[in-house]
Amino acid sequence: MAPTTTAAPIMTSQQFLQSWQGHRALTRRTIEAFPEDKLFNYAVGGMRPFSALAMEFIGMAVPTLQGVITGKWEQFASAKATTRSELLRMWDETTREIDALFPKIPAARFQEVDTAFGQWKMPIYDLLLYVRDNEIHHRGQGYVYLRALGIEPPHFWER
Amino acid sequence: MAPTTTAAPIMTSQQFLQSWQGHRALTRRTIEAFPEDKLFNYAVGGMRPFSALAMEFIGMAVPTLQGVITGKWEQFASAKATTRSELLRMWDETTREIDALFPKIPAARFQEVDTAFGQWKMPIYDLLLYVRDNEIHHRGQGYVYLRALGIEPPHFWER
Repeated sequence: MAPTTTAAPIMTSQQFLQSWQGHRALTRRTIEAFPEDKLFNYAVGGMRPFSALAMEFIGMAVPTLQGVITGKWEQFASAKATTRSELLRMWDETTREIDALFPKIPAARFQEVDTAFGQWKMPIYDLLLYVRDNEIHHRGQGYVYLRALGIEPPHFWER
Repeated sequence: MAPTTTAAPIMTSQQFLQSWQGHRALTRRTIEAFPEDKLFNYAVGGMRPFSALAMEFIGMAVPTLQGVITGKWEQFASAKATTRSELLRMWDETTREIDALFPKIPAARFQEVDTAFGQWKMPIYDLLLYVRDNEIHHRGQGYVYLRALGIEPPHFWER
């Protein structure tokens, strides 16, 4: 095979979605790994408890996709679960909404530059990466909380 | 615009590389944020110190790209820096090697399935995501170490 031009596509939007949902499934198992009280009250180094991080992910996902699809940027949603089961219900609802919304993104949209939520000017593919990467970043922090509690986190490579 | 087919490309290989190197620049600043002794000796919850995580990233990057390009999988490289400046030198050398190797990946290769290092059977784009995601995951853990040490980590959104 000849060397690629650097403009070669690396993955499809469907593959990106599948990868993102795989990460989200891992985050769900991370939520489940916490004892309920520690999920809401425990953190290391003055940081936020893992429930607050998970609610941030929920609050970003659907409003981001809605902005990507419509070009209209609303506020981040303000998720406010107070129990693990409520958090998991919101998580699963978000999973379904992502699956429903993602295929509605017009193909040409991924390469467009937009100012997301009136603040972050970047190409849409980069915004979608950001939402995904932010979850990986903070979930890694949840792994430290679990280790500090003596709890084995779920395997990172299982999605 | 019409809704996309799910097979629409989401980003080019060049955009992926740029995003990965942006993350790597952030990891470099995270290495620099640690006091030298803490970089090599400090961790939370019985985990590895951040220098060991950074050396894992260095050990994976170039051997992965060599395997992607040639289809021959060697061992992960075994990076063994004992000072921060040595670690940063190895980091920068890896940065240059990634920039040199990545454009040599044949365009059709990203969608091929291979068994990386004789162990991990997956499409090449997914393997490249894995290497990138593994760094984001562990760097997030380094952020907790820094917070626990009372040190402000670099901004996640600056690449």
